[in-house]
Amino acid sequence: MPATEEPPMKKMRGDLPTDDASLALLDKVYDVQKELDEVHNKAAEEIVQVEIKFNKLRTPMYEKRAKAIAQIPDFWVTTMLNHPIIAESLAEHDTEILTNLTSIDVVENEDIKSGFSMEFKFKKNPYFKNESITKKVTMNEEGDNILSEISHSIRTVRRTKDMKEICAPEADEGFVSWLQSEVDPEMDDIGNLIKDDLFPTPMEYYNAQIDSDEEDEEECE
Amino acid sequence: MPATEEPPMKKMRGDLPTDDASLALLDKVYDVQKELDEVHNKAAEEIVQVEIKFNKLRTPMYEKRAKAIAQIPDFWVTTMLNHPIIAESLAEHDTEILTNLTSIDVVENEDIKSGFSMEFKFKKNPYFKNESITKKVTMNEEGDNILSEISHSIRTVRRTKDMKEICAPEADEGFVSWLQSEVDPEMDDIGNLIKDDLFPTPMEYYNAQIDSDEEDEEECE
Repeated sequence: MPATEEPPMKKMRGDLPTDDASLALLDKVYDVQKELDEVHNKAAEEIVQVEIKFNKLRTPMYEKRAKAIAQIPDFWVTTMLNHPIIAESLAEHDTEILTNLTSIDVVENEDIKSGFSMEFKFKKNPYFKNESITKKVTMNEEGDNILSEISHSIRTVRRTKDMKEICAPEADEGFVSWLQSEVDPEMDDIGNLIKDDLFPTPMEYYNAQIDSDEEDEEECE
Repeated sequence: MPATEEPPMKKMRGDLPTDDASLALLDKVYDVQKELDEVHNKAAEEIVQVEIKFNKLRTPMYEKRAKAIAQIPDFWVTTMLNHPIIAESLAEHDTEILTNLTSIDVVENEDIKSGFSMEFKFKKNPYFKNESITKKVTMNEEGDNILSEISHSIRTVRRTKDMKEICAPEADEGFVSWLQSEVDPEMDDIGNLIKDDLFPTPMEYYNAQIDSDEEDEEECE
């Protein structure tokens, strides 16, 4: 790593204490921190075990849910349009294309620590040929999630200039673009919202419009 | 809630299916989702129990660590200046003022679900009189964290115009400003980084400068 070119901060290596009293105190902090790190690691490990246990219960339920959802027209596009943050990230062309999205599936690796994958399935549609696109996220050696694989780019059906632009891997807006883009999973707001919010509890969004209308009516009576 | 003024989206309530087949499928999704929600809740509850168990182990360690850290000059300001994101959020005046910060303490409520508090202690200093400032975050009925209390505003010692501006509750930049500001805890990047990153593992930042220098040396040999 090269020496930083930024303006020097007031506190730097030179300011770390070197007197015996401070060094003894620092040793103490190190020792306690080592014990604390062990506790942090044990807690993280137990939480992983809880998640593994419950993922085993969730898997058959998600499969059962997916079968019903795939037959309900516009299920996922409706949840996305009713999700306050995901909706904002959708580009104009996405709404139409997303009516063909029949399935979202998030599958954590069995140990959950090594990563997960997100699969999006589409019915036959006039935009592109892909029946499914999968984004696979793998934990790297530093313990960060990295995007390790996208199954493949979108192969367009409609060979118009517009469709080519929308489905180009370098397109920089909206869901179809996100689907093919290599976003750092730690900063991937759309991906994280789909994985941790939309996928586990879609009904909160599918019915968002109805619920807020009903609240209005109650307030008005 | 008033009707939205935003441009209407393509999919709205009117687009939800009303035919018998779709409604039967939706009922099925509802039923499975209810089972799933129960699993989600049970998993969340078990994770809370894990955290409660480990917090009991952590508390005496944090107290022991705090006693040593309070005697090491510039400990917390050094961790902050070495933290890549927190450092960026510091204003010019913060570095000097933060040399007086002797203790950070994050205390989760016993049940961890009802909230937590963050206490910042200062030694006698020429800037302000407060010995400590506490930000208390409480979980509201909707299950969101809300900032429920800041112990009190900073009472300046130096009554210069500059100090008044820096310590004014409406100041909009840096740590001292953050300390007194009512930021939504869900969006509070500084608060969340202190709570979940700097406080549990400060040594990763205290020594960041040394570590990266050592790496440089190894690479150069």
